[in-house]
Amino acid sequence: MKIITTIGAGQMASALSFPAVENGNTVRLVGTPLDRDIINTGKSKGFHPTLKRQLPENGIEYYQIEDVERALKGADVVICGVSSFGIDWFVDNILPIIPEDIPLLSVTKGMLDMEDGTMINYPEYFESKLVSNKNLSINAIGGPCTSYELADKDHSLVTFCGKNIETLRMLKNIFEAPYYHISLSTDVKGVECAVALKNAYALGVSLAIGLAIGRDGSGIEHYNSQAGLFGQGVREMKHLLKIAGGGEDNIVLSAGDLYVTVFGGRTRKIGTLLGRGFSFEEAMEQLKGVTLESIVIATRTARGVRHMAERGIVKLEEFPLLLHVDNIINSGASAADIPWQSFETEKF
Amino acid sequence: MKIITTIGAGQMASALSFPAVENGNTVRLVGTPLDRDIINTGKSKGFHPTLKRQLPENGIEYYQIEDVERALKGADVVICGVSSFGIDWFVDNILPIIPEDIPLLSVTKGMLDMEDGTMINYPEYFESKLVSNKNLSINAIGGPCTSYELADKDHSLVTFCGKNIETLRMLKNIFEAPYYHISLSTDVKGVECAVALKNAYALGVSLAIGLAIGRDGSGIEHYNSQAGLFGQGVREMKHLLKIAGGGEDNIVLSAGDLYVTVFGGRTRKIGTLLGRGFSFEEAMEQLKGVTLESIVIATRTARGVRHMAERGIVKLEEFPLLLHVDNIINSGASAADIPWQSFETEKF
Repeated sequence: MKIITTIGAGQMASALSFPAVENGNTVRLVGTPLDRDIINTGKSKGFHPTLKRQLPENGIEYYQIEDVERALKGADVVICGVSSFGIDWFVDNILPIIPEDIPLLSVTKGMLDMEDGTMINYPEYFESKLVSNKNLSINAIGGPCTSYELADKDHSLVTFCGKNIETLRMLKNIFEAPYYHISLSTDVKGVECAVALKNAYALGVSLAIGLAIGRDGSGIEHYNSQAGLFGQGVREMKHLLKIAGGGEDNIVLSAGDLYVTVFGGRTRKIGTLLGRGFSFEEAMEQLKGVTLESIVIATRTARGVRHMAERGIVKLEEFPLLLHVDNIINSGASAADIPWQSFETEKF
Repeated sequence: MKIITTIGAGQMASALSFPAVENGNTVRLVGTPLDRDIINTGKSKGFHPTLKRQLPENGIEYYQIEDVERALKGADVVICGVSSFGIDWFVDNILPIIPEDIPLLSVTKGMLDMEDGTMINYPEYFESKLVSNKNLSINAIGGPCTSYELADKDHSLVTFCGKNIETLRMLKNIFEAPYYHISLSTDVKGVECAVALKNAYALGVSLAIGLAIGRDGSGIEHYNSQAGLFGQGVREMKHLLKIAGGGEDNIVLSAGDLYVTVFGGRTRKIGTLLGRGFSFEEAMEQLKGVTLESIVIATRTARGVRHMAERGIVKLEEFPLLLHVDNIINSGASAADIPWQSFETEKF
């Protein structure tokens, strides 16, 4: 029986309570300053307002952020469950107070681009922000898993990554459930890169959905064009994985994660709106209030690629889909101008 | 202006008429003995009864099989457009009468397993059936492309493969259209293996659709489990590609093709029925009359893998999804018993 302190009471972090509690562990769900209502509603009704599910009746304790130190006391694992947009809040406020002997497991997916174009993943970013000599075990979850379906106990296959296989096995032991299947990998760069990039490319694939259904939304969804973009996405992700120094076998994770993201919620929505011909500003207006990690990761990765191209490390023409997505988001390009011909290859 | 003689007037072969004719070429559409109605209807009304589309008004000539020699005379390219089930008919009746100077381009996807478990693709099979000294240029089309959408001129990205890059460029020149984008590859083993296998794995992914919607079909589709199987499918295909001696970069094709096949027609139907809990015999009964290449390729590949395992070339535990699909089809296993735990990996 372990104590899991989850920082951030968003959908995915909260959904992880299901397998954890089912295995007899206790979850201390700590809201960020943005999660006050979630914690209040959870405490009073056991209901999660954005996950739209009853949380397990027993085994969950609810904390507001003021009580975070109490929630950390005696914990066996800390979950970082903030969104990409809360990562710096987490680094500034939480990372310094996690005791050295408690491993961190992050569900937040994403990468940051450095000035020279190098991409670093969130575990590396956390690492870089530790005070000197602090030795924290930083682990992360990747792989195709939407929070709703995890809460509904549908089968999901994910990967926990971190530097130490024994720590990973301990974490797996806490969360493995008949519906939550966990692979382990010490290739943190590979896993994190694979799963971060998929948001950018899911947006790219979704453009084809919007292009098919049209501005008025009355058209019929087509799949050849989605599949063409899917294949091109896999090609570019494979290349980015290699540049990031991750094992190329992680493309298996990218592909599965790309698949689920094309069907899931927000990224599909923005990509479809852009494909239908709305400008980025119009599309964002329609999705007001929604956090769009796909926009952030596409922008950062494209910026990284452009910087690396300046340094001669990559060629821009190797990433036509990423750059097209970035041009739509950041330079007003039309989604309809998909650079199909630049996806054609000759291999001999 | 070229003359393209298409043997087999099925959906994909006929859909290829659109880009070919649009580019000013002439298509001679030759029905197999099973295509008599298609040819008659095409000749009288210009309508394709199974593609359910009007074919281009000008540029197509219709031939019954008795006139095949006349249709081959003066042709610049021959298309093999039969289904997997017609491949031996094609080998026995057509391959011997194709003149040496006319390149063959095959749309038929599939592989055969030899007694020792080795898998060979259809171009290799054709090659093995040529009379000695006959030197025929054998090329094939792979990549995600459903015939309906090609006929509707939606964007598709495919790959032509063959031994000679110049021949491939000539073929691309005939078919490339603003909506039909063509990559070229001389890695025939890789391309053909990548695109043949996807049928078996699309059936595997579709099981999750059926499991979610349930026996009575009233459930809601879930994506985590589909994505888990999708990732596992990509993993196993990647491994099979390597064994087949194809470049692993072809996984890009497998992934895109798997994506479109999960959405397209027949393979999804059988996989969903099996997932819903119908036995293989019940499912086949419901799909009466439909040709199911996925069943053939799954059975052959599993048989090949088992033979290779006996010879110590592969380990059976590397292909749990393929073997599960095969066990459902050929040994009455329950689709619900997806071997999730065997998909878990440890990498360190």
